[in-house]
Amino acid sequence: MAKKYVYLFKEGNADMRNLLGGKGANLAEMTNLGLPVPQGFTVTTEACNKYYKDGEVVSDDVVNQIYTALEKTEKVSGKQFGNKQNPLLVSVRSGARASMPGMMDTILNLGLNDEVVEGLAELTSNPRFAYDSYRRFITMFADVVMGVDRLKFEKAMDKIKEAKGYTKDTDLTPEDLKKLVKDFKAIYKKELKQDFPQEPRVQLLEAVKAVFRSWNNPRAEVYRRMNDIPAEWGTAVNVQCMVFGNMGDDSGTGVAFTRNPATGEKALFGEYLMNAQGEDVVAGIRTPSPITHLEEQNPQVYKQFVSICNKLEKHYKDMQDMEFTIEKGKLYMLQTRNGKRTAPAALRIAIDLVKEGMISKKDALLKIEPKSLDQLLHPTFDAAALKKAKVVATGLAASPGAACGKIALTPEKAKEMHKKGEKVVLVRSETSPEDIEGMAVSLGVLTATGGMTSHAAVVARGMGTACVAGCTKLSVREDKKEIVLAGTTLKEGAYIAIDGSTGNVYAENIKTTDAAITGDFATIMSWADEFAKVKVRANADNERDATRALELGATGIGLCRTEHMFFEANRIKAVREMIIATDAKAREKALNKILPMQKGDFVAMFKVMNGLPVTIRYLDPPLHEFLPHEEAEMKVLAKELGKTFQEIKDIVDSLSEFNPMMGFRGCRLSIVMPEIARMQTTAVIEAAIECKTKHNVDVHPEIMVPLIGDVKEFLYVRNIIVETADALINKAGIELTYKVGTMIEIPRAAITSAEIAKHAQFFSFGTNDLTQMTFGFSRDDAGKFLGNYYDKRILESDPFVRIDEQGVGYLMEHTVKNARAVDKNFKCGICGEQGADPLSVQFAHNIGITYVSCSPFRVPIARLSAAQAAIRNPKCK
Amino acid sequence: MAKKYVYLFKEGNADMRNLLGGKGANLAEMTNLGLPVPQGFTVTTEACNKYYKDGEVVSDDVVNQIYTALEKTEKVSGKQFGNKQNPLLVSVRSGARASMPGMMDTILNLGLNDEVVEGLAELTSNPRFAYDSYRRFITMFADVVMGVDRLKFEKAMDKIKEAKGYTKDTDLTPEDLKKLVKDFKAIYKKELKQDFPQEPRVQLLEAVKAVFRSWNNPRAEVYRRMNDIPAEWGTAVNVQCMVFGNMGDDSGTGVAFTRNPATGEKALFGEYLMNAQGEDVVAGIRTPSPITHLEEQNPQVYKQFVSICNKLEKHYKDMQDMEFTIEKGKLYMLQTRNGKRTAPAALRIAIDLVKEGMISKKDALLKIEPKSLDQLLHPTFDAAALKKAKVVATGLAASPGAACGKIALTPEKAKEMHKKGEKVVLVRSETSPEDIEGMAVSLGVLTATGGMTSHAAVVARGMGTACVAGCTKLSVREDKKEIVLAGTTLKEGAYIAIDGSTGNVYAENIKTTDAAITGDFATIMSWADEFAKVKVRANADNERDATRALELGATGIGLCRTEHMFFEANRIKAVREMIIATDAKAREKALNKILPMQKGDFVAMFKVMNGLPVTIRYLDPPLHEFLPHEEAEMKVLAKELGKTFQEIKDIVDSLSEFNPMMGFRGCRLSIVMPEIARMQTTAVIEAAIECKTKHNVDVHPEIMVPLIGDVKEFLYVRNIIVETADALINKAGIELTYKVGTMIEIPRAAITSAEIAKHAQFFSFGTNDLTQMTFGFSRDDAGKFLGNYYDKRILESDPFVRIDEQGVGYLMEHTVKNARAVDKNFKCGICGEQGADPLSVQFAHNIGITYVSCSPFRVPIARLSAAQAAIRNPKCK
Repeated sequence: MAKKYVYLFKEGNADMRNLLGGKGANLAEMTNLGLPVPQGFTVTTEACNKYYKDGEVVSDDVVNQIYTALEKTEKVSGKQFGNKQNPLLVSVRSGARASMPGMMDTILNLGLNDEVVEGLAELTSNPRFAYDSYRRFITMFADVVMGVDRLKFEKAMDKIKEAKGYTKDTDLTPEDLKKLVKDFKAIYKKELKQDFPQEPRVQLLEAVKAVFRSWNNPRAEVYRRMNDIPAEWGTAVNVQCMVFGNMGDDSGTGVAFTRNPATGEKALFGEYLMNAQGEDVVAGIRTPSPITHLEEQNPQVYKQFVSICNKLEKHYKDMQDMEFTIEKGKLYMLQTRNGKRTAPAALRIAIDLVKEGMISKKDALLKIEPKSLDQLLHPTFDAAALKKAKVVATGLAASPGAACGKIALTPEKAKEMHKKGEKVVLVRSETSPEDIEGMAVSLGVLTATGGMTSHAAVVARGMGTACVAGCTKLSVREDKKEIVLAGTTLKEGAYIAIDGSTGNVYAENIKTTDAAITGDFATIMSWADEFAKVKVRANADNERDATRALELGATGIGLCRTEHMFFEANRIKAVREMIIATDAKAREKALNKILPMQKGDFVAMFKVMNGLPVTIRYLDPPLHEFLPHEEAEMKVLAKELGKTFQEIKDIVDSLSEFNPMMGFRGCRLSIVMPEIARMQTTAVIEAAIECKTKHNVDVHPEIMVPLIGDVKEFLYVRNIIVETADALINKAGIELTYKVGTMIEIPRAAITSAEIAKHAQFFSFGTNDLTQMTFGFSRDDAGKFLGNYYDKRILESDPFVRIDEQGVGYLMEHTVKNARAVDKNFKCGICGEQGADPLSVQFAHNIGITYVSCSPFRVPIARLSAAQAAIRNPKCK
Repeated sequence: MAKKYVYLFKEGNADMRNLLGGKGANLAEMTNLGLPVPQGFTVTTEACNKYYKDGEVVSDDVVNQIYTALEKTEKVSGKQFGNKQNPLLVSVRSGARASMPGMMDTILNLGLNDEVVEGLAELTSNPRFAYDSYRRFITMFADVVMGVDRLKFEKAMDKIKEAKGYTKDTDLTPEDLKKLVKDFKAIYKKELKQDFPQEPRVQLLEAVKAVFRSWNNPRAEVYRRMNDIPAEWGTAVNVQCMVFGNMGDDSGTGVAFTRNPATGEKALFGEYLMNAQGEDVVAGIRTPSPITHLEEQNPQVYKQFVSICNKLEKHYKDMQDMEFTIEKGKLYMLQTRNGKRTAPAALRIAIDLVKEGMISKKDALLKIEPKSLDQLLHPTFDAAALKKAKVVATGLAASPGAACGKIALTPEKAKEMHKKGEKVVLVRSETSPEDIEGMAVSLGVLTATGGMTSHAAVVARGMGTACVAGCTKLSVREDKKEIVLAGTTLKEGAYIAIDGSTGNVYAENIKTTDAAITGDFATIMSWADEFAKVKVRANADNERDATRALELGATGIGLCRTEHMFFEANRIKAVREMIIATDAKAREKALNKILPMQKGDFVAMFKVMNGLPVTIRYLDPPLHEFLPHEEAEMKVLAKELGKTFQEIKDIVDSLSEFNPMMGFRGCRLSIVMPEIARMQTTAVIEAAIECKTKHNVDVHPEIMVPLIGDVKEFLYVRNIIVETADALINKAGIELTYKVGTMIEIPRAAITSAEIAKHAQFFSFGTNDLTQMTFGFSRDDAGKFLGNYYDKRILESDPFVRIDEQGVGYLMEHTVKNARAVDKNFKCGICGEQGADPLSVQFAHNIGITYVSCSPFRVPIARLSAAQAAIRNPKCK
């Protein structure tokens, strides 16, 4: 039998999401539940992949299956495609496995042509509706399917409105609309050198192809990359009988959530517009009414809707996000899906569902997107600063969090300012999918129009970016590079502050402060820790970061980069003196100046981390990073150190490298200059002794040697460390344990780890460098071609953000296996920046990593990821 | 039972070389053969390693075993250590597994003290001999054991000679020598604040320790590194009863070879000096007589010696290098070993031994050091140029090959000149072990004194460097930076030419030409090919190199680096135009200019390699390597291309990279700019079509994609290649096969090779880059710390010269296994510079590599190495 590429709604169910896409699977499920769903069929994601495999051609068998499904749909609906007397109109919509709101294309009212439109006008006795639908269809088809600029049609409409002195679209008479259809078809012909297609089946096939193509449009690609959706998934296409929310005042359309997506509150939440099509709500052109108003307007429909909502939530065991249309008083469900929500809402809903007995703790933890926790750690306004600040306008509290930055009026400007290191708030009349990259670099988004479900609101919530939408006192003058906010003109670049939790807008620079783990957040984190196997440490180089890490639940410091301690202005001089030294003696003299400062750093950190391990990585970067490179600076340095400019320049030149990443750095420094390791060990151990004896602190120093490639390198440095440390401990006459371990960040270290494991007390994967060398990608240079690699699908995700399991992961797994052969409890950590990426944490769990270490702010994300990994793969040790 | 650290000679044998060292094992073997060997014992290499392990201390059990062996030796010899009436004197010599001539220390006449010397004078009735021996011993002990500068003693001797008006050492009377001993002891005391040790057992232990220490002296370390001798081997110490060649005119000492070490001729070859100790011969201070003269001088001893020589050669089945001493008419054998020889001699001896039925072809092949073949490929003087050249002096033809270069008078100067890219001939009075690095960078060595077995001659032969020794018409004035050669003064830096095969010296610049494979060389190479499994290809980028490769027996081109074709003056402009292009169209225009040139290159190479495969690697280096970096050059380029200076500078700046090794290069270029791969494919395939159709050439192009890290990269570029190639072949309407494969030079490519192997038609390991990234060593920068790594024994050999089996080798083996799982004949080559290193070829054989590819001149070395690997490990496929 031929492969099945097309499923009627009644043939599918919710489990067929991979094949039918999310929308298609849920339409099928709702059909099975007996809910009022306009019937239709889904062309599968496999058909999409086949389309690309066949060279962007829809094969005959797929076409035939579409036609067969169409005929069955005609039967069910009692209407017929292209039949003037009883025309079937359909919508054609994309639907991928994962929700990608607004990223791909939709065509409504398909099936209309010059004849059918007349029939429809007669049938509905509503020529205004019929011609309005037709002109919308022509525009959409020309734009989405044929790539004609929508503006061309809008201009033609504006021309008529101007000529007639109309102000609103609804002022257009049926005759105007009829004329407009004629004009639109003329534009279509002029632009495309062909007539607008009159055959509905041709329209349908072209629309299906357009949806397939839209899977690879640039904004869909960006969205996929941001959300880790593989290109291989493809999109399904849903062809569904049209129902019309724009057939008069007894018709309407809306979207609703079973719980509040911003707060999680258990109450129906949504908006609707009477006499409108769905696109009107989503586009944010008119401001809709709250769903509760429907109770007054049409109590019967409202009651039916509430009952459906309850049924769906119980069925899916999660908060639902639904679209519906009322056609002449009859309710139709067009979509349901698990609703997107803010992080606070996600926590509250998860906890409530457990309390309501609907789901288990494990299910609750799996429902929360780890990355979304980031939102909870976003800043709020400093309470004192806020008191003095003045609210100049308010809008909808569309995505929580406080943001303050300089105004950017276009996504391009936002990116440009972000690149310069400026904090940016993107201010737009309304946002559209093209703005997505600009939104990604902004701390907050402010729009003049659009509701809680407008594009700006949905996308900002997804990103965890603060958003105030529908701020009516705002007008954006993009051409003049300014906005007018409650009567005051602000230039692009001026400060603005928004609070996405209250909707307040401020025309000033307000200090923000960080959030803490309390309430629902704390509950979920404690649940996570019950299940997680992989521990979470933090990367912290100073007392402040260590304190923050502890507050956010870190179980230790996994990476303290000692060189960061060297850059402070009062220390860099001694560091430079050390580098400029021409022999070991002079070097030691300079190192002795650094020693007390470094010791002080460690004392402070040990105190904060009382009872927890602190992993200290020894000097790692190439020495030239500490030296000045400008002539003027070199001259100053020469004077300071009593050298000639030429002497300094010679040293700077001699330390410059062709490939510093693979040059004189890491343990290579301490091998050539053992006095560095000696000084650092002295600082660590003296600090530990002081903490233990004077401050009664429980210290657990873990000394980590960077950039090992061979066991002999490790042994050489370890011996220096142990000799120095033991002498100090003996002299102090106390008991003090410390560990000496190594980074695994050179491929050869991973390969030969069986040997290294015999001598090291712990391993920590430096996944940044390991990724660089395994791929042969210089992180600083790869930007030049990685964009191209994404475009060409050679890479699907950034290996510096997510551990590459096939390559880098192979080396890690090999290493863990070798280490555990030596000692089944051998401590293996990860301290690269991938340490908090949920999929990387899952990988870490699967291969038996002891802990991941990440920046303090990402600790909660890693904790939840670790719990999810353990729940998903409980067998793993 | 306690571990045995000391073996009497009669307890050992030749197979115990690892434990007893070469010298010790052979002394034992000769003892067992009943030859006249002064008895003694060997302290094992394990004792040396224990000495280092114990922190440079000789442990009590070793000391006791030494004393026990000493007592047994006293019994055998009938003499006694420290006994005035019948004193035993011993020599203490190093002896590692591998011969390291002159690299470590020797102490003679040990056992003498103020009393014993008087006894010896009486016993021998030769006070001159006794005191001369004592003053030599004090000097040697002070120098070698205690580190006192030898010059201090020589000065004291010169003072007496001056005072007395003597010209030669032998003018010194016994009384003078007695006085000298007194002076020497005073110097000893002054320098060391202690008396010269009178207790022979103390002398002995200190001497043993000194030999152990000498294992790690700087020249031994350099020698080991050059000859791949691991530091872990350690040295043995041989303690042997002294026999004296300096007891009068019926005494003497000499060295001899059973065959001529320079030519391989089957005839006893050697030198001796009457009334002398061994050091006098080796040091080249007096010029000795040829061994054949001994027949006249002492026919009986000569006959006995010849008979011993024959016995030893038959026993060891190889040419022997022997040391002997005649004490008062009695012959003693002090050493035998397989003799070092020139490459031509090695070939002749190996072939002769097979002809004589002594060994098999396999044994013969194993006897030849592959690296030594290098000598045979050294240049000879151009015949025409030689006709016009004038011989101004002659010396001993100590190491074959012609060399012409500028005079350097010190090793430092030689190194300095070499660094500047100059050709150097090192000219010295005589060389010493300290000169070894200077010799290594010189094309030839010329000395004024010393024979065929002098330091200069032995070391130069080992290195394959041309050497003329003992050139009596030469006087070197190091202080004046000049030499006088047959009356003519030549300044340092002037041209000189030497012929190590004839001994001729020329004071001019003579053109040299390359050698070819004929005669014995051809015989051995054909034998080698009978056994070798690993094929040998060559790296060649042009017609000339390809021709040379074919002459030297390459079975194909394993690496043609297309970028080398781009640098020629008339091409670089088009290449730069291509790089400067801002879009694909402009880039294609520039590429079209390069296309015919590149096609021409390939036509020429295909013609040369008719019937053999040619592996073409596509553009690999970062583009900025093709661009000028000086402002002036950039301005010229701007003018040429009709751009502004700023435009050019912006492009140059934008292409500069932090770590170019891991940047925008290799296949990444063709992925971002597919038109490059398209042009290169067009050039390859059009050239192949032209060769096939117009020139009747059998073409086998193998297209190789560089720097693959993921199968998707390979597929992307392969698809471009295949599309382009197939279109051209179809158009031409002919049959033409080509292969598309990939380099394996990124660790990730090796790790994920199972996937890549499914799509590639061959693999070639780029062991240079693979080593860089596996170690995280930038080849251009690692020099800064690798020296330190060798000093500290963290690395024993340069991984860019010899494949690192543990790390890089693991990835290679993993890859070969994956490839062979896809296809058991999957072609896996090596095209890194390690391709001709004998141990690397052996590794290649062991893991089943199909071919290695190296520079044309190293092809014969690789062929022999491959044969040896197959003979040593015949089981490997």
